[in-house]
Amino acid sequence: MTGEISSAGKLAAFDLNAYVAERTALVLAGLDRFAPVADAPPATLHRAMRYSLFAGGKRIRPLLCMATAEAIGGSAESVLPTACALEMIHTFSLIHDDLPAIDDDDFRRGMPTAHREFGEAMAILAGDALHTLAFSTVALHQSGGTGSDAAARVVRVLGLIAESCGEAGMVGGQVDDILYEGQPVDGDILRHIHARKTGALLSASILAGAILAGATAEQERALEVYGEQIGLAFQIVDDILDVTGDDAKIGKPTGSDLKNDKATYPKVYGLAESGELARKAADAAVAAVAGFDGRAEALRTFARFIVERDL
Amino acid sequence: MTGEISSAGKLAAFDLNAYVAERTALVLAGLDRFAPVADAPPATLHRAMRYSLFAGGKRIRPLLCMATAEAIGGSAESVLPTACALEMIHTFSLIHDDLPAIDDDDFRRGMPTAHREFGEAMAILAGDALHTLAFSTVALHQSGGTGSDAAARVVRVLGLIAESCGEAGMVGGQVDDILYEGQPVDGDILRHIHARKTGALLSASILAGAILAGATAEQERALEVYGEQIGLAFQIVDDILDVTGDDAKIGKPTGSDLKNDKATYPKVYGLAESGELARKAADAAVAAVAGFDGRAEALRTFARFIVERDL
Repeated sequence: MTGEISSAGKLAAFDLNAYVAERTALVLAGLDRFAPVADAPPATLHRAMRYSLFAGGKRIRPLLCMATAEAIGGSAESVLPTACALEMIHTFSLIHDDLPAIDDDDFRRGMPTAHREFGEAMAILAGDALHTLAFSTVALHQSGGTGSDAAARVVRVLGLIAESCGEAGMVGGQVDDILYEGQPVDGDILRHIHARKTGALLSASILAGAILAGATAEQERALEVYGEQIGLAFQIVDDILDVTGDDAKIGKPTGSDLKNDKATYPKVYGLAESGELARKAADAAVAAVAGFDGRAEALRTFARFIVERDL
Repeated sequence: MTGEISSAGKLAAFDLNAYVAERTALVLAGLDRFAPVADAPPATLHRAMRYSLFAGGKRIRPLLCMATAEAIGGSAESVLPTACALEMIHTFSLIHDDLPAIDDDDFRRGMPTAHREFGEAMAILAGDALHTLAFSTVALHQSGGTGSDAAARVVRVLGLIAESCGEAGMVGGQVDDILYEGQPVDGDILRHIHARKTGALLSASILAGAILAGATAEQERALEVYGEQIGLAFQIVDDILDVTGDDAKIGKPTGSDLKNDKATYPKVYGLAESGELARKAADAAVAAVAGFDGRAEALRTFARFIVERDL
């Protein structure tokens, strides 16, 4: 971690850019290691998996998992298989959400979506293969440490990730997102959709890092609040950027939520109040980890950065 | 288990029908318990998941998992979450394989396929939700026993299942199955496709039961051979029935492999030699568990039944 620990226990001049660059390099090396070799058969499937895995993106889930492990006193490297698994789950969900039968998006992060590049059958199957690769990566490569509960920690992390992306989490949220297209929504419905569609996996990323690093029950509770609030901030900002953002910067056409008449924060609250809600959520996330020492500075800085990036 | 143990250590007059009926009832109760409630929101997703889970089928993977656990001295109930998870994985793969972009099948087990009943988006997402539900069911509900390696057994089972259905297993086999449509294939390619498309998950079902029941390394090696051979027999018979079977009995139009010009055993070896290969594989499966006592009678009877059912 860059920066020096001051007497107040905080990192002085925490350098988020350097932190993110170092951890992102770790994640990319991990993904390369855990993903199947591109030219081994069935090569088309492997290429499709790698195409989407390495199509860019902020790698926010692995970064949050690592930053949480570090906040508890673990290392980023020690949770690398789980961090990579979270990115595989996220990538699988993007590939399937982009399919013609679902959101029918042609571009993602400035590149043709998987089904535009490899055809629909291969996109469905590459998503499935990444989904299952996430679980095998954790089960086969993630150490739970040296204590007698090492394997039990890994089981808990696997259960947490699976629950967060199933019908009570990410997939359920995606279903509601489709069902509420063109329907009137209020703030409660909106929060319910997003808590599952994007919030559940973000929260799981944070808790997984905490469990593997041996967090206390009290630390886990604080991090749950942090996870809920940062997930909320993240989603609101994403909705705002779809209205106000720059196509080239975001890598996909903005206005797609509007086109699909999606339930979004700007639609329900307007732009100004949405911005205010995002700032409040980020503040609540920072407050949730107030009891943590300087090793949690990355978590605090992430929360601030999310609402400052373009608002 | 029905029947009485004779002096030779074998079950006299093993009643396969009664065995299958009892274990199938257990599996159905387990699936009902682990699947989300049908009328809870998002109800459409939950209904789609249950529609395919309870659409019938032989439940061969859960039955093999349970029978293997029993062969080692465990109980069928003790592996129920894993047995149900294997059926969820199998069901997810059928839903996705039937999609218009992949095999484009309208009927399965005499009922409209999931995408015909619920639409394509919901079928994709119901498959995804069942995929992930398999892993949460094992991680949250499967006990690994009472020893110090209990959690490690569960991690091993999760890794085994995930590997068996990923790019090196079921999904990879499905990709090859598509890529080889209309292509010339020989016996080696055929075995390679099917060892992964259907063999890997069948083998995982058997090994998972063995691991959870505390099999020795030697028992595991014998059961690996049993799994390979029974998987081979099962696939050959399935290919034969697609040519010779009765639509009403099978629940889907026969001849679909021919229509899609799939790589099958009858195509490569002809019907007569395919039947002979299936019988040899079943014999090899029975021989692999020759060293097991009467508690393995279900495994032996399954192997014989597979080739006798309609050949």
